[in-house]
Amino acid sequence: MQQVGLIARSLDEPVGETSGRLIALFDRLGLRVRVDEDGPIAALRGATGVSRDAMGAGCDLLVAIGGDGTMLDAANLAARSDTPLVGINRGRLGFLADISPEHMSDVLGEIVAGRYVKESRLMLEATLNTADGDAPRAIALNDIVIQKFDVGRMLEVQVHMDGTYVNTHRGDGLIITTPTGSTAYALSGGGPIMAPGLNALAMVPICPHTLSDRPVVVPASAELSLRIIEPAGGHAQIMTDGQLLGDMHSQDTLIVRRAGERVVLLHPLQYDYFRILRSKLAWGRAAPDDMA
Amino acid sequence: MQQVGLIARSLDEPVGETSGRLIALFDRLGLRVRVDEDGPIAALRGATGVSRDAMGAGCDLLVAIGGDGTMLDAANLAARSDTPLVGINRGRLGFLADISPEHMSDVLGEIVAGRYVKESRLMLEATLNTADGDAPRAIALNDIVIQKFDVGRMLEVQVHMDGTYVNTHRGDGLIITTPTGSTAYALSGGGPIMAPGLNALAMVPICPHTLSDRPVVVPASAELSLRIIEPAGGHAQIMTDGQLLGDMHSQDTLIVRRAGERVVLLHPLQYDYFRILRSKLAWGRAAPDDMA
Amino acid sequence: MQQVGLIARSLDEPVGETSGRLIALFDRLGLRVRVDEDGPIAALRGATGVSRDAMGAGCDLLVAIGGDGTMLDAANLAARSDTPLVGINRGRLGFLADISPEHMSDVLGEIVAGRYVKESRLMLEATLNTADGDAPRAIALNDIVIQKFDVGRMLEVQVHMDGTYVNTHRGDGLIITTPTGSTAYALSGGGPIMAPGLNALAMVPICPHTLSDRPVVVPASAELSLRIIEPAGGHAQIMTDGQLLGDMHSQDTLIVRRAGERVVLLHPLQYDYFRILRSKLAWGRAAPDDMA
Amino acid sequence: MQQVGLIARSLDEPVGETSGRLIALFDRLGLRVRVDEDGPIAALRGATGVSRDAMGAGCDLLVAIGGDGTMLDAANLAARSDTPLVGINRGRLGFLADISPEHMSDVLGEIVAGRYVKESRLMLEATLNTADGDAPRAIALNDIVIQKFDVGRMLEVQVHMDGTYVNTHRGDGLIITTPTGSTAYALSGGGPIMAPGLNALAMVPICPHTLSDRPVVVPASAELSLRIIEPAGGHAQIMTDGQLLGDMHSQDTLIVRRAGERVVLLHPLQYDYFRILRSKLAWGRAAPDDMA
Repeated sequence: MQQVGLIARSLDEPVGETSGRLIALFDRLGLRVRVDEDGPIAALRGATGVSRDAMGAGCDLLVAIGGDGTMLDAANLAARSDTPLVGINRGRLGFLADISPEHMSDVLGEIVAGRYVKESRLMLEATLNTADGDAPRAIALNDIVIQKFDVGRMLEVQVHMDGTYVNTHRGDGLIITTPTGSTAYALSGGGPIMAPGLNALAMVPICPHTLSDRPVVVPASAELSLRIIEPAGGHAQIMTDGQLLGDMHSQDTLIVRRAGERVVLLHPLQYDYFRILRSKLAWGRAAPDDMA
Repeated sequence: MQQVGLIARSLDEPVGETSGRLIALFDRLGLRVRVDEDGPIAALRGATGVSRDAMGAGCDLLVAIGGDGTMLDAANLAARSDTPLVGINRGRLGFLADISPEHMSDVLGEIVAGRYVKESRLMLEATLNTADGDAPRAIALNDIVIQKFDVGRMLEVQVHMDGTYVNTHRGDGLIITTPTGSTAYALSGGGPIMAPGLNALAMVPICPHTLSDRPVVVPASAELSLRIIEPAGGHAQIMTDGQLLGDMHSQDTLIVRRAGERVVLLHPLQYDYFRILRSKLAWGRAAPDDMA
Repeated sequence: MQQVGLIARSLDEPVGETSGRLIALFDRLGLRVRVDEDGPIAALRGATGVSRDAMGAGCDLLVAIGGDGTMLDAANLAARSDTPLVGINRGRLGFLADISPEHMSDVLGEIVAGRYVKESRLMLEATLNTADGDAPRAIALNDIVIQKFDVGRMLEVQVHMDGTYVNTHRGDGLIITTPTGSTAYALSGGGPIMAPGLNALAMVPICPHTLSDRPVVVPASAELSLRIIEPAGGHAQIMTDGQLLGDMHSQDTLIVRRAGERVVLLHPLQYDYFRILRSKLAWGRAAPDDMA
Repeated sequence: MQQVGLIARSLDEPVGETSGRLIALFDRLGLRVRVDEDGPIAALRGATGVSRDAMGAGCDLLVAIGGDGTMLDAANLAARSDTPLVGINRGRLGFLADISPEHMSDVLGEIVAGRYVKESRLMLEATLNTADGDAPRAIALNDIVIQKFDVGRMLEVQVHMDGTYVNTHRGDGLIITTPTGSTAYALSGGGPIMAPGLNALAMVPICPHTLSDRPVVVPASAELSLRIIEPAGGHAQIMTDGQLLGDMHSQDTLIVRRAGERVVLLHPLQYDYFRILRSKLAWGRAAPDDMA
C-alpha cells in the first residue's frame, strides 16, 4: 500500500479530529493521503486533493469516517474503482463503519500490515428505462426503492422475475434489498435479516394493501423488471441507497439486477457480524416484560 | 393504614434484604406487617404469618417484591380482597413493579401518608364450562390464553362475541389480553400496546395460518365465547396469567368477560406510564441503522 | 323523510345506471332527490342541483354510490350537517358502502320506512398550527397521516398526549386512526383492527426505524400534539382521509383530537360488521398451507 | 419407468376414487403399481403391497395423493430412496401437490413419457444429541421446530452457527425452515417467503420476547447448534415436518444442517411456482379497503 483515500461528508469537530489523527498515523506508516478536492474535507492539512474519480483509481485503500450513510457513498466509489474500503464510525458502532476511533490506530496498523478479514459484498444495479429514451443507471450496496410520490394515492407495481410474472404490489412501494441492506430500510418494512454472505436479494413491500403480500427472498442471479400499473398518469420515485435516481412513469421500466461491481470491505481480525447485529438490535437487552 | 401485607415468591438474597428494610420501615411508620404463613417468606422476622386469604382481607395495603410474575400473583389476591397494591421491583423497573428498592423508603412514606396516584386496572374472568359439568373459573390481570397442546397439530378455535360469530382462528392459539397484558405475551404475538386506562380487550392470534388474521380490539364489555373446532378429538390448554386453568376439549366452552374484580394500584406521584414504556421497549435507544 | 341527497364521484356507466334506478325508486317513495350542482352527477335527470352545503343542510338522508373513497367524502359532508348516510357499493362490498346495487331497492325501502340499524362513528379533527399563523383544520372518518415528503430522508416526529411526552417516531411517518380507519391504511402499516364502536384511537408508525416502536391504542378522549424534530429544515405532509391538509414544517404543531362531528350510518337490519370483515379479509378462505 | 409407488394417508372416498383411476391409468401405460403393504391403501385392487422401504427402492416414480402433509411423508420416503415424486392434490391446489385429479391423466401421461420439469429441493437434517447418549436423527423438507412444552414458561434457546454465537431467543421457540417450508409454519411465524431454488435456510423465532428478534436467512451450508438455557430443569419438543423427533433437555444439543438427501419433484411442463403462490396467498384478490 502506498496511497490512502480519506472520505467524510463534513469537517465537523469529531471528523476533523479523527482525520487529523489518521493523517498523522498514515504518515508514520509511510502512506500518502488523498482527499476529494471538491469535497468537504478538501482543506485538511497533510492530505492532497485529487478528483473523486482519481481517488478511487489511485488509492490502494479507502477509509471512510462517519455513519453508514457516508459508508454507502464511499462504497459506491470503492466498488467502481475496485478499491478496498474500511469504515471508522463516528459515535456508535455501525454495520459498515465497524472500527471505533479509539481503536483505529491499532486496527489500521494491522490492516496496512496485511492482517485483516476481507469480505466481498454484492451490490445491485438499477436501470430506469424511460419512455423518452433516457436510461439512468446506478449501483447500490443497500437497496433500490420504488416509492409513491403523488399525494394520497396508492402505488401499484407489477414485478416480473426473469420474465415470469411474480406479483402486483399495491401500497406505498417496494424495497429491493441486498443482504447488506437487509438491516436498513428493509428491516423497518418487515423484511428478514440476511447474513452478509448470502447470495440473495429480497423484495419487501412497503405498507402492502394485501396482508398476505409478504417479503420474498430470491437468488441474487434474478433479474427483476418493474412497471407502474397505478396511478396510470402518475409517477413514483426511484431511490438507490437513499439517493434519487429519477422519477418513474407508467410507460417506464425499472430493471434491477446484481451489479458487476462489488464492494471489498476490510475488517479487523476479530470481526464478528453477529456481535454487531446483537449490539445494533439490542438483542442482549433485558426483555420488555418479565413473566417469571 | 394499620396493616401491610408483604408478598414475595422466594426469600433469596435481594428479596430478603429488601424485605428486612421494608419491615423496619413499616415499623417506624407504625404499621404491622403480615405475610403468607404458607409462603416462601413466612419465616421473616418482624412479620406475622396469616393465611393467604386473611392477608388480603385484613390488610390496608399489599406490597409485592419481585418481577411482574410476582405482581400478577399479588394482583390476584389484591383484586379478590379489594386491597390496594404497590410493587417493588427487584432489579429492572417493571410495568407493575414500578418502585425501585433504592427509592422505596421515600415513596412508601409518601404513599402511607396518602400521597400517591391511584389507578384501577380492569381484569378478565375466564370460565371453562366443561362437558362433564365442571366450570373452573379464574381472573387475570394480563391475559387468558388458549394454546395448542397436542403434538404437531394446528388448533382451530371459533370465537363468538356477544352471540355474534367473529372468526375461526387456525394456528397455535389465541391470546385475550387486557390493556395491562398488552405489553406482555400479546406484544410478542403481534398485538398492539393499549394504554392502561383503555376500556378494551384485544384478541391476538398466535402464529395464525391465515395471514390476514390480525389482532382485534373490542370494548371491554364484550363477552367472548370460544370453542375448539379442530382437532376434534384433541384438546388445548387454557392459561390465565400464565397459570393453567385446565384442559379444554371440543365439547367445552370457554367464556371470557371483564371480571367484577379490579386491581387498584398505588403509584408514586411522579408516575408516568409512557416513561416506563419507553424504558422497557428501549424506545430512547439509537436506531438499528443510521442512514444519515 | 322528504329529501335525499345523492353523492357520487363520477358518472361512469355503473354509477349512472344505479343513480337512475335510485331516482326512480325515491320518486316512487315520494322523496325528492338533490345532487351537488357543481359535482360530476349534476346532470342527472330527475334530480335537482343545489350547492354542496345545501345538500347536507337540506336533506334528511345522504346516499353515496361508490367505493370507500366516495364514502369518506360523503361522510365529511354528512358529519358537518348531521345528516344520516347510507352507502351503495359499486362492485365489491365495502366497509362503509355495505349495500349492493341488487339489494338496494328493498333495503332503501326499509330504511325510508324507518327499519334500519343506526350507528354513530367517531371522527378525528386535525388542526395544523403553523408558524405563520395559519391553522387549517379538517375532520376525518378514517385517519390523519403525517408522512415524509423530502426525498430520501427519514422523518422524526415527536408525540405528546394530553401534555405528556409519549415517543419520538423515526421512520416514514405516523398514522392516527379511528376504529373505522383501522381496516384501511393503518392495517397495512401493522395496526390492529378496532371494532367500530370502540371509543379509541390508534397511533401506527409507518416503517419505524426502531423495531419496538409498535402501534399504541389510546382512549378517544386523548389530545395528541405532534412536532417534527428531523429533518430540521424539511417538511412533511399532513393527510386527512387521503386529502392533503397542508405541508408541515419543524416550527408547526399538529393537534389531533376527537372531532365534535360524528357520522351517523344507517345499515340494513341484518347488518353484521364481522361478516363484512371476514369477507374483506378473506378470513373464510382456505389456508396457505395444509399440514394435515 | 416400470414401477410406480402410490402413497396416501387414508382410503376415504375421494382418494379411493382417484387411486382407482390412477391404477387404471398406469395399467394402460404399462406400469406396475406398488403400495405400502402396512398402509391405509394396502387393500387397493390392482396394486401390489410391498414393504415401505421396498416401495422407495423398487419404484421409478412415487405418486402421492393428498395434502401437503401426505406429500411431506412421501417426500421423506422419496428422498431416502432417491426416487422422483409427483403430487396429486385432493381438493385445493397445494405447494407440493400441484396436479389436480381432473388433469392427472394428461399430466402423468406426459411425465411418464419424459416431459416434465424436474426440481431438486434441499432438505434439513436434525440430530438430537442427548445427555444419555441417544442421538435420534430425522430429515425434513419443510422445517425443524423447537417449541416450548412446559406449561406457562418461556423457552430460552441459544443458537450457534458454524461455531459462532448468534443469539439467545426467548419466547415460544424457533423454526428452522427450508425454502420449501417458508410458506408453511414459518410464514405464520412472520418469516419471509423464499424461492424454492434458494440455497438458504431461515431461522424464525416464535412469539419472541424481544421485538427486534427477527427472522434471519443464512446460507444452506450453515451448521446450526441449539441449546436450551431456560427453563434449566425443563424441556422442549423437537418437531421435524410436524412429527415429534424427541424431547430436548438442557443438557442436550440439537444440530441442524442441510441433509445429504434431497427430494426430486416432477412438475407438469407449465409449472409456475409464483402462480401457485399467488393462488395460495390470495394475492390476486381485491384489497381489504378501497381508498379510490
